[in-house]
Amino acid sequence: MPTVQVETLTRFCEAILEGAGVPRHKAQVTTACLVAANLRGVDSHGIQLLPFYVDQLLAGEMDPHTDGQVISESGSCLHFDGQNGLGQWVAETCCGHAIRMARAQGIGMVVAKESNHFGAAAWWALKMREAGQIGIVMCNASPIVPPWQGREGRVGTNPICMALPGPWLLDMATTTVAAGKIFKAYFNQQPEIPAGWAFDSDGVPTTDTQKAYQGMLMPLGGYKGSGLAMMVEILCAVLGGGAMSTEVGGIRFRGRTVRVSQMYMAIDIARFMPLEEFTARMEKLVGMMKSTPSAPGYDEVLVAGDPEWRIEAARMANGIPIADGNWDLLVKAAGRVGVATSPV
Amino acid sequence: MPTVQVETLTRFCEAILEGAGVPRHKAQVTTACLVAANLRGVDSHGIQLLPFYVDQLLAGEMDPHTDGQVISESGSCLHFDGQNGLGQWVAETCCGHAIRMARAQGIGMVVAKESNHFGAAAWWALKMREAGQIGIVMCNASPIVPPWQGREGRVGTNPICMALPGPWLLDMATTTVAAGKIFKAYFNQQPEIPAGWAFDSDGVPTTDTQKAYQGMLMPLGGYKGSGLAMMVEILCAVLGGGAMSTEVGGIRFRGRTVRVSQMYMAIDIARFMPLEEFTARMEKLVGMMKSTPSAPGYDEVLVAGDPEWRIEAARMANGIPIADGNWDLLVKAAGRVGVATSPV
Repeated sequence: MPTVQVETLTRFCEAILEGAGVPRHKAQVTTACLVAANLRGVDSHGIQLLPFYVDQLLAGEMDPHTDGQVISESGSCLHFDGQNGLGQWVAETCCGHAIRMARAQGIGMVVAKESNHFGAAAWWALKMREAGQIGIVMCNASPIVPPWQGREGRVGTNPICMALPGPWLLDMATTTVAAGKIFKAYFNQQPEIPAGWAFDSDGVPTTDTQKAYQGMLMPLGGYKGSGLAMMVEILCAVLGGGAMSTEVGGIRFRGRTVRVSQMYMAIDIARFMPLEEFTARMEKLVGMMKSTPSAPGYDEVLVAGDPEWRIEAARMANGIPIADGNWDLLVKAAGRVGVATSPV
Repeated sequence: MPTVQVETLTRFCEAILEGAGVPRHKAQVTTACLVAANLRGVDSHGIQLLPFYVDQLLAGEMDPHTDGQVISESGSCLHFDGQNGLGQWVAETCCGHAIRMARAQGIGMVVAKESNHFGAAAWWALKMREAGQIGIVMCNASPIVPPWQGREGRVGTNPICMALPGPWLLDMATTTVAAGKIFKAYFNQQPEIPAGWAFDSDGVPTTDTQKAYQGMLMPLGGYKGSGLAMMVEILCAVLGGGAMSTEVGGIRFRGRTVRVSQMYMAIDIARFMPLEEFTARMEKLVGMMKSTPSAPGYDEVLVAGDPEWRIEAARMANGIPIADGNWDLLVKAAGRVGVATSPV
């Protein structure tokens, strides 16, 4: 498994995107998002996604040139049309609007339709965090998850993400696991996945990686996971006027555009209390969690964000290990757009 | 098990609250919330709660007279101090503010601290629905749930609720089940509860109702449920400046006030699309869910809200069945405040 330095990986991915026709500034924004996910250990949302983006671009199914456009802005609400642009560029733009609006009137809620895959939601919610705000980001996704009691995909992994100034960061799919975890097992020839992750294509629970890859993800905790996924679908796709449920494509499927919708909400903490007080309260709350005696089999209590921050510190220092299967796919993508393989 | 007509039950509960010193208009608002939960089949959040409220009132640990007060209002954000008033009265007031603010600037976000139990969150999100808005309601609760990998309670069941104009309504605890389901089993002498609902007081999974009643609830799906509960705790208690985690009391515990915090968000749909279009899109999305072939063992796909609306129609027609244990507790509460038992 090669270990790649952040700078090297960044230059390589930017070159691949530019080779596929993406303007330099957008290639940089997109790459920063992907590499940050690898840095945080969220490999499912890192450079593993790039070969799919290249497929979309070379197939002419994603427009690297459009900036999207504001449909309407009214009070704390902004409606955005991504115009099938790069998901990361849509997200960068929408986060800017949400932060600006929250500064002006306390809350900014931006709903974007006709967007594309934007990497890990956490990267975008962290933009609000950097602005001293609470960021909430959601998006719909390919309909690979059956609703509770059903046996055909109807909703996506539809993540819920929240970031804020303080030692806590939530970014979770509303399925037991993100699809990327199954993709990663598949690309790297792991024959088995844990129970509870997936159904096969007949709606029967499976631990066979190949069957899971062709099958469906399980909603988190059964009917409640379906409810949360619908909440996301509504706040993104229904409210945004975008593609819903089976109307949504996916980065693995050619011959159609992805058409995902996203919701970006920024909340100005200072409307409720000084930022320093909020951050101190967050630190106190996290301390209260960590003071919990650990359950048999564990030696500490972690909160959302802890595992990723720990991995980030290590990978910043030592580089990012890229699984062989992922590296091969990246090199192949580079070859398709005439980019020489980066030495590792 | 007696079956009680809505009107009879309503008059009886209003009389009990008035007997405990609650002004008439607040007794009406509180009772309407509780009886609506029973009507919808959510007995855990219905009149089962009333004897606890009476305990709090008679102990002088909840103030039936205060109306609470606005701490600040700025743009789309309002900060409210419930001043230990009746939770339903705080909620009624805060929903009014949220709806007004969403009409004025697209979104109204109200965070209330120092509140009390407000019944089912759904009743309050439905206020926004009636106003043609999306309503999102959350609250923190007694710290009876351990964080992931811990074995002492640190957060509550911290529900997430969303309502909107359309055939869908989500109201879910971020635990596998709401605490009320375990209370109901306990009050009605059911010896066993399903696996996955609760830990005993040592942090070991249990199906013994008595041990579960004295123990802790399980977070939904493990670490993700803990993350969602923290999201709620942050948006309610951290942002509201209220009691956090173990600082929160509970309706079952005397000698301290409850001190829960709540978040009420209203979103004006018309800022994104005409209300009729949104409702039509919701109906379409729900139709897409219901078109899913059902999994083995089920004969249809339901969405959030379906079971409750079906029960509501039946109970409206036939009256509300009240379990014997719950009825006895209600009659005892009536006796304590000098109210004659309603004939059933």
